[in-house]
Amino acid sequence: MTARQRVIRVSTERPTSAVCVLGTEICVDIYGSIPKGATSFRVRGTSGLQVYVSYNPKFVTAREETAKWPLDAGVEVIVTLKEPSRAVSDNKVRVSYYGPAGETLIANAWLYITCMGVAQVLIMVPRITAISLDADTSRTGLVARNAANKTKWTWGPNGEGAILLVNCDRDGPSSGNMDNAYPYVRSYTDLQDLSLVILHTHGPAGIYDSHTLLLHISMFDADKVRVFHASGSSSLSSYERVLGSEKLSYAVGQTDGEEQHTFYVEGLAFPDANFNGLISLHATLLERSGQNLPATPVFTDTVVFRVAPWLMTPNTRKPIEVFVCSIKKGDFPNEKFLEAIKVLAKKANCKLTICPEIENRGDRWIQDEMEFGYVEAPHKSFPVVFDSPRNRGLQHFPFKRILGPDFGYVTREPKNGRVSSLDSFGNLDISPPVKVRGKEYPLGRILIGSSFPGPGNRKMAKVVRDFLYAQKVQSPVELYSDWLTVGHVDEFLSFVPAPDRKGFRLLLASPLSCLNLFKEKQKEGYGDAALFEGLGRWGTITLDELLADTALRHDSKYVQSCIDWNRNILKRELGLSERDIIDIPQLFTLEESRATALFPDMVNMVILGKHLGIPKPFGPIIHGQCCLEANVRSLLEPLGLACNFIDNFFSYHVLLGENHCGTNVRRAPFTFHWWNITP
Amino acid sequence: MTARQRVIRVSTERPTSAVCVLGTEICVDIYGSIPKGATSFRVRGTSGLQVYVSYNPKFVTAREETAKWPLDAGVEVIVTLKEPSRAVSDNKVRVSYYGPAGETLIANAWLYITCMGVAQVLIMVPRITAISLDADTSRTGLVARNAANKTKWTWGPNGEGAILLVNCDRDGPSSGNMDNAYPYVRSYTDLQDLSLVILHTHGPAGIYDSHTLLLHISMFDADKVRVFHASGSSSLSSYERVLGSEKLSYAVGQTDGEEQHTFYVEGLAFPDANFNGLISLHATLLERSGQNLPATPVFTDTVVFRVAPWLMTPNTRKPIEVFVCSIKKGDFPNEKFLEAIKVLAKKANCKLTICPEIENRGDRWIQDEMEFGYVEAPHKSFPVVFDSPRNRGLQHFPFKRILGPDFGYVTREPKNGRVSSLDSFGNLDISPPVKVRGKEYPLGRILIGSSFPGPGNRKMAKVVRDFLYAQKVQSPVELYSDWLTVGHVDEFLSFVPAPDRKGFRLLLASPLSCLNLFKEKQKEGYGDAALFEGLGRWGTITLDELLADTALRHDSKYVQSCIDWNRNILKRELGLSERDIIDIPQLFTLEESRATALFPDMVNMVILGKHLGIPKPFGPIIHGQCCLEANVRSLLEPLGLACNFIDNFFSYHVLLGENHCGTNVRRAPFTFHWWNITP
Repeated sequence: MTARQRVIRVSTERPTSAVCVLGTEICVDIYGSIPKGATSFRVRGTSGLQVYVSYNPKFVTAREETAKWPLDAGVEVIVTLKEPSRAVSDNKVRVSYYGPAGETLIANAWLYITCMGVAQVLIMVPRITAISLDADTSRTGLVARNAANKTKWTWGPNGEGAILLVNCDRDGPSSGNMDNAYPYVRSYTDLQDLSLVILHTHGPAGIYDSHTLLLHISMFDADKVRVFHASGSSSLSSYERVLGSEKLSYAVGQTDGEEQHTFYVEGLAFPDANFNGLISLHATLLERSGQNLPATPVFTDTVVFRVAPWLMTPNTRKPIEVFVCSIKKGDFPNEKFLEAIKVLAKKANCKLTICPEIENRGDRWIQDEMEFGYVEAPHKSFPVVFDSPRNRGLQHFPFKRILGPDFGYVTREPKNGRVSSLDSFGNLDISPPVKVRGKEYPLGRILIGSSFPGPGNRKMAKVVRDFLYAQKVQSPVELYSDWLTVGHVDEFLSFVPAPDRKGFRLLLASPLSCLNLFKEKQKEGYGDAALFEGLGRWGTITLDELLADTALRHDSKYVQSCIDWNRNILKRELGLSERDIIDIPQLFTLEESRATALFPDMVNMVILGKHLGIPKPFGPIIHGQCCLEANVRSLLEPLGLACNFIDNFFSYHVLLGENHCGTNVRRAPFTFHWWNITP
Repeated sequence: MTARQRVIRVSTERPTSAVCVLGTEICVDIYGSIPKGATSFRVRGTSGLQVYVSYNPKFVTAREETAKWPLDAGVEVIVTLKEPSRAVSDNKVRVSYYGPAGETLIANAWLYITCMGVAQVLIMVPRITAISLDADTSRTGLVARNAANKTKWTWGPNGEGAILLVNCDRDGPSSGNMDNAYPYVRSYTDLQDLSLVILHTHGPAGIYDSHTLLLHISMFDADKVRVFHASGSSSLSSYERVLGSEKLSYAVGQTDGEEQHTFYVEGLAFPDANFNGLISLHATLLERSGQNLPATPVFTDTVVFRVAPWLMTPNTRKPIEVFVCSIKKGDFPNEKFLEAIKVLAKKANCKLTICPEIENRGDRWIQDEMEFGYVEAPHKSFPVVFDSPRNRGLQHFPFKRILGPDFGYVTREPKNGRVSSLDSFGNLDISPPVKVRGKEYPLGRILIGSSFPGPGNRKMAKVVRDFLYAQKVQSPVELYSDWLTVGHVDEFLSFVPAPDRKGFRLLLASPLSCLNLFKEKQKEGYGDAALFEGLGRWGTITLDELLADTALRHDSKYVQSCIDWNRNILKRELGLSERDIIDIPQLFTLEESRATALFPDMVNMVILGKHLGIPKPFGPIIHGQCCLEANVRSLLEPLGLACNFIDNFFSYHVLLGENHCGTNVRRAPFTFHWWNITP
């Protein structure tokens, strides 16, 4: 409710006194107490003031401002303040009322104005006012003094508006919950996650005898933000929580002269279905007009924050840390796989973190349990893990092991607790930056696997989808993944970095290109070459047998048409052409009319820069090498990619997952700032 | 998920058959099965097709489309359909593969295309497709055939997109609940509230042996919309509910040739905090590729609806019906007031509806219980009463007596049931149409009375505010009304029609202008004239006594400053100048530091066109007339307004309400259509 204009009434009986903040425009009501018989008036102001007479030329002819004006036809007197007061009431306006004759002065009305302002900077910053709530509205990492449009938050490179982080990491000291679960500043590192706000005030002596300065928020923002007042002392306890939850307003202790108050603002909630992410903080000057009368607002300054969205990172971003589970117990240990991932991480010189059995509780699908992302403000950025509502063995891993100093945590769980396989985050992916029919997506687009219409089909939980959509800047695209038994998008697509074109290629699993490859080999006389050689008790199948299988041919045609449907959506929504897409040979078979990979699903790979960890397909060996591996090499190596085929057959594949499902990668954030987007 | 492009694979082994919908672009995958040794290809299509070769001039030099092209460098074959098939597979594409020599034909790949389309209109409407879901997307009241941008809903005079009404009236037959509480069409008048959707299909014989046509919605829209299928028979029971709640998809029974299916769509929910008002309806052609294989989508058409917002009407709209309560029992009967309102309604020739004691249960504040508004679609519009969560004696009146045929009902109640006086709809008002710094508000702006910051202050319930904000087109402005004991905006402001300027004036209660008026009269020698003459036991007070009361002077100064704060907000948010505002003399006194009117609050008037029903102030009688009435007449009669001063002293005023609080007016909807706004 900022009000830069203020109506002030004058009276011929006694002088009117008013305190005004430099920058406010005063509309003097000269009609409120016209003395009997007066028909015209004249107005004069002292040197600290600028007096204007506003009139409608239709009814009044222009004249000297200090000349006599008719007392009607809506002539108005506007006063602006040139400089701050040195003493209370040192600016004066006199309104003189005259009779019809025009010469007889009937009465004077006096207005005494005390102007709050900061003199020394006035010349450089004409906008400067005596009460100014300042934050990093120009997104430089520094508090901008007296920004122009603090009350509006605008997107884009020329946008303005401050940014707030959800303080969802755990800087500690103690372990326990996320920092924003505690209504106090936990540590100095914790303090770094908050946004700085400075309240500048300047009033002449005695001003606060009749005025109060309030810092306040709306009750509807009270559960989304917390404000601390820095007393100046260095002890943490001196950061007093002044706003948040039940505290909606705070009287700022005032002394005369120039003052500066330091506040720290903490975000508590991410944008979501019913929260657009905007939060307003107000500073209001209240006038106490008399004994036991409530105070009334005379000036408000407002600064608007946007809570930083949670952001995802595509495969093409630099890998920082790879996560994988160690499984020793049970029929399907993964030591060999673990070794291969170690080697791969080393090649990509990327940190490797192994989640021990005690923490994964036999659940090896670490891709499905969480998605790594980050939050960013000009003053601070840190990674944030999004914990899926899937909740199997790894349920507590993100909160217990990932959440920590400068590592945030967020989760969404459906109230009814009902989740499907499509809520696993193997079903949540993101494209590299794309441009679609002129529209830029510099942070890529989120990809969600969804179901095709029909009752009882699986879909990602609404709370998770609402959260993803509400982040806004990585505008989600819905694909069709329910045709798969497990139902995750990473079963049929992946993105790999490329030196040319858009900087990446979309890899799509392709039953047809696989059948064509096999037929070619058959023609070449290798019909007796078999899949699954060297897998011991696991039965092999020759190309001849496989190509004679009509059911498999039908399944492949069906699966191809499902993938082609997604191909069309991806081409349209990501602005891709056929040349941006590479078909990776892959076969699927249907069980209960849902598809599973016949041999290790190669697109389900882990991507660390140029180093690809591809599921070893165990295809037919021809001239001493697997023809599937050879084919994939021929497709990807020209892009400068190194194909590492990793045996996951008994450790992942037979359990309906592959390399991507069994790993998770934390990647470097974008260098592009999300607030420079125009969504 | 509309996909107008479709990838189709060809093979040199057997011809590929595909059914395509006219309008779809076919991308022929010629790389999927390149015969051994082939290095170039040539492509030809039959007359019903248009065959293009797309290539990158960087790598390939242009040539005749039917000439030979290299089998690399990403040369693509695109086929479009010129006209619908007369028989299945009557369009053919041949891809011929050649060896390095260039002359030796190695193999041909055939593609047979069946094209679904409607021939006869093809020339007029090139966009026409064989599966088209059509609604009133051009907002003419008629179904638009094959609109261009059905999948987008856009605002403004050139906007496109269909509109849905919340079927919240009660056409019956029986009484009971709102029509949309029943999962069936209740009557033919009920049917008029629904939006018509027509599904046009045209396929050659035999097409549906291998294809299914589904009508479907997202599970997230399932609680907001219901779709009925008109079988053609005239009986109501023949309108089968096919979508809504648990029904997410519906297989449309298909026969060969051209067909037309008629659907009726019913809105169930208004836009709100977590519903943006948009709903999508899809028709998808599914291909059943084989025995016991699931079907896959090959074509989708989508139409997007926006649910019409609930709209308010300002005082300046023509009055249709006045509501007032009859109170006979108790110490404060209102017969006299009732009579006066009857006379006023007659003058304005406007229907009068009296709510009898049996229905109002002693609650006379009918303004507070409900707000009249309306909903509008091109095909239908009807009034809708918004029932406040206030719930006193009149609690059941809106539902029981207002809800009815073509009269809708909506309400919002906070879950915790906690409401304050600010939730009464005397605290909800709307301005006439305004233009603010270039931005037009052709339907006015909603005004909500709110509290000034500080803990424990009263505020309108979040569910009510969220609802009002979500309607979007009458963008709310928050005022400060909590300084009043009752706390309603109608205690200090009102809008009256005016022949000039913006077409209205804003009336604001003004203690200062009242004190000035009284002082003037005192100077003129009427200091002994008294307020409240002729009110029997109610004590009178002379101007001398009143003007000597310093407490009253302080209270007035305080109240004036509160109203001035609102004046500033109103000037800024409604783009008003001082000349658009009229000060109405009014005094308030503070009790427990909240304000109540000292004499009947004149701005709290009922406005029926030019006829104003103003609370009779019982001011000092001078020269045989009340000087307050005289003053108000002098301010309003020049605008062509007729001032009727109605005695409400013991029937309303002493109970802390006035004429506006005690009445409610249903007004004519705007002639301006809300969808022509650009919010």
